[in-house]
Amino acid sequence: MFSIFKQEARGLATSPASSSTQDLGTNCGEGLDSESSEKTDKEPVDFYGLGDPAAEFSQMSPYLSSRGSIIKCFRDAAEEGYKAYHLDEYDEDKNPNGIINFGTSENKLCFDLLSSRLNQRDMHHIEPPMLQYPDWKGHMWLRDEVAKFLSYYCKAPVPLKPENVVVVNGCASLFSALATVLCDPGEAFLIPSPYYGAITQHVYLYGNVRLVYAHLDSRVTGMDCRPFQLTVKKLEIALLGAKSEGINVKGLILINPQNPLGDIYSQERLQEYLEFAKRLPDPQRTHVIWGTSKDFGISGFRFGTLYTENQDVANAVASLGCLHGICGTVQYQVAQLLRDRDWINQVYLSENHARLRAAYAYITEELETLNIPFLRTKAGFFVWIDLRKYLCSDTFEEEFSLWRRFLHHKVLLSCGKAFECKEPGWFRLVFSDKIHRLRLGMQRIQEVLEKEPQGAKTLSPCQSLEKSSQSR
Amino acid sequence: MFSIFKQEARGLATSPASSSTQDLGTNCGEGLDSESSEKTDKEPVDFYGLGDPAAEFSQMSPYLSSRGSIIKCFRDAAEEGYKAYHLDEYDEDKNPNGIINFGTSENKLCFDLLSSRLNQRDMHHIEPPMLQYPDWKGHMWLRDEVAKFLSYYCKAPVPLKPENVVVVNGCASLFSALATVLCDPGEAFLIPSPYYGAITQHVYLYGNVRLVYAHLDSRVTGMDCRPFQLTVKKLEIALLGAKSEGINVKGLILINPQNPLGDIYSQERLQEYLEFAKRLPDPQRTHVIWGTSKDFGISGFRFGTLYTENQDVANAVASLGCLHGICGTVQYQVAQLLRDRDWINQVYLSENHARLRAAYAYITEELETLNIPFLRTKAGFFVWIDLRKYLCSDTFEEEFSLWRRFLHHKVLLSCGKAFECKEPGWFRLVFSDKIHRLRLGMQRIQEVLEKEPQGAKTLSPCQSLEKSSQSR
Repeated sequence: MFSIFKQEARGLATSPASSSTQDLGTNCGEGLDSESSEKTDKEPVDFYGLGDPAAEFSQMSPYLSSRGSIIKCFRDAAEEGYKAYHLDEYDEDKNPNGIINFGTSENKLCFDLLSSRLNQRDMHHIEPPMLQYPDWKGHMWLRDEVAKFLSYYCKAPVPLKPENVVVVNGCASLFSALATVLCDPGEAFLIPSPYYGAITQHVYLYGNVRLVYAHLDSRVTGMDCRPFQLTVKKLEIALLGAKSEGINVKGLILINPQNPLGDIYSQERLQEYLEFAKRLPDPQRTHVIWGTSKDFGISGFRFGTLYTENQDVANAVASLGCLHGICGTVQYQVAQLLRDRDWINQVYLSENHARLRAAYAYITEELETLNIPFLRTKAGFFVWIDLRKYLCSDTFEEEFSLWRRFLHHKVLLSCGKAFECKEPGWFRLVFSDKIHRLRLGMQRIQEVLEKEPQGAKTLSPCQSLEKSSQSR
Repeated sequence: MFSIFKQEARGLATSPASSSTQDLGTNCGEGLDSESSEKTDKEPVDFYGLGDPAAEFSQMSPYLSSRGSIIKCFRDAAEEGYKAYHLDEYDEDKNPNGIINFGTSENKLCFDLLSSRLNQRDMHHIEPPMLQYPDWKGHMWLRDEVAKFLSYYCKAPVPLKPENVVVVNGCASLFSALATVLCDPGEAFLIPSPYYGAITQHVYLYGNVRLVYAHLDSRVTGMDCRPFQLTVKKLEIALLGAKSEGINVKGLILINPQNPLGDIYSQERLQEYLEFAKRLPDPQRTHVIWGTSKDFGISGFRFGTLYTENQDVANAVASLGCLHGICGTVQYQVAQLLRDRDWINQVYLSENHARLRAAYAYITEELETLNIPFLRTKAGFFVWIDLRKYLCSDTFEEEFSLWRRFLHHKVLLSCGKAFECKEPGWFRLVFSDKIHRLRLGMQRIQEVLEKEPQGAKTLSPCQSLEKSSQSR
């Protein structure tokens, strides 16, 4: 059984570059701060899970196909938090009582740097090929810059090759394309949970590919030296569990830095995970995704790139590229951005890191003051905070009820269920924002937590809430 | 049987605005020029066909899923013509013996106007929301401009509503999204053929949706008053044929102006077709796609919009929108472009039409001089030319052989098979290019046709050639 998986597995890793450009450096640490894992072992925790996005929805539309009705429900379900937020966004001057967004994983600290760079004269160049149908792998001058950029910042032992690069409109599109060309309908990828929940949609919406979760939890036992630690043993258990249910697992998804945990996998750990996936790490079956959303804080730019040495995969993804194309002038701007090593190293990275560090220091001090346990972050824009002691009972109804109380009190967070976390009560808090907004958001969190938590007995069952506080 | 289809059908119409902004005005005409339909009735022509993209490919990759292998083959197959072209593009100075591209349906006449407009200062504005995750329906200020633009240029009887607009990265993405949310896997859309062949991929790659062809041909008989005329009778025959094969047809795709024929459907005709699809035209089941590629000659910009009054469809497409997102600054530029009515009306449209008219006049005079029959075009960038008399036999092998002789003689055309035309020997010739390139391309065509056509007996069977000279 196991060897079949090993023959079939494809390693799928994400964002190696992030570990160099996003690393917060001084804020490394291990384990939970204060009270760490006080609620462990209260109830048995499953070691794996199997996502079934279709099972959560049932409302059919007479105007849509069966799958269309399910696809539509993803939007409906994701809307509660973001709909409320977009109708009532906080603005210091115009809407000081509006909602503070601690939910969307975006870097709002460097808009001045990026808009200034993107408005420089060299960005406004247009040539006929930029306005014409492109090669769907992307313009060669951009693929060339991507290869150079990733070679440099990922410290590649040998230069990466432009012909192995395919660029599309964002990493979400690459998850969709890779799921479709690596899996047949109903097959699955293995992923450690909690994980960035939107991947569920990205691999399912078009691809009809499911996720098998290798559940991590806060208990520190046996081989684990920190909470939520990923081990090969946990991957093996999840894989065997999925196999016992007849699920064909075709690959392993690793997000690095991990979202929502903020972990960075060490080279040794990555090696272990890839060996698990394919005895020896196999470059022909290891496909790397990287995008500018997090490292450059420009999620609205919609830029993602695949790097793979396997030309079958590159060509199959390029075939889908006509559905994920990027505007030619944007390709030019991204190329200009990536090649401007002076600006990146001397202006952007140092300033971005300093601002992120300051925001992280502020938010973690506040959390400590409020006696809220959290996982120390190595990278990313977020901290994974432990609000289990504020739940009346260890249920996702309770977690959702708390999430909703935050929202009603004008602060939007992402709750653990949105990341398929197995333990109710964890939340992701995004800190990459201006201090005055962080301060106000933390005040509001404190005000909610100081009140006695309310029972949530009138709420509908857990299933119907699953996607309601979706992450981004 | 028939009423079931009527209950299920969805009308899907494309590019109503094009009829006003692309209409060549003075070049209207009916019927084939010179020799018109001399080869008619030589052999029986099927009245309908059923596309089966998977049947054409068989090479499995050990690195891909079954569907991934098929998806990859689309890229391999499409490459011959465009690969040759991109390796050897004609350039007046640098590569005068390079390939002239009469194959890609792009307007190369107005780059100066567009690049000048897109480089004006008002285009270079950046605000934080443009760099952040957007609503996947598009920024509201863009949807607002799209609604105003389409209301004005489509002469909408009542203003179109911004909330019915969803913008994505190109019309290809909308075909993919609509196919997926309107059809379940294996279901089909009905489409008159010849048609823009890339739609096969757009609905099949992710959606696994097939096309049923209502074959049009050059014979003028009975109800037809011009060659390749679409009638409800032909749609009915194709629909019944598909039903007899157990195919569930979920909608009708109409491209207006028609590609490759260049026809514009009159309001009366459109009404008939929509009544066929749904007894009475039903706004809740009529979904309109429009894009900037053709009307503004900026296919590299990747902009397409859906207009639908049905919110289930809009929301389901928006759910897929995370995979088809457009860069925020590009959304801003498109909004600026669409709202600049002065530039569009006084600069762009008049100049664009004058240049297209001149190019059309030149190419049709050349065709007449060469005694090549063609369909007079009402709109679009192309003429549908009849080279049947140059084939040794009425086969697609012969057509492909002629297409390849053109390519070897450095002129790239699209052959009829790429549009699923049922009669071998038709080609689409794109004329929206500078006169010196048109002149050289026509010289090369003449040189090929003056030689005695060669037999093509050594070629592989028709099936394997189906996608080889794919259109764009």
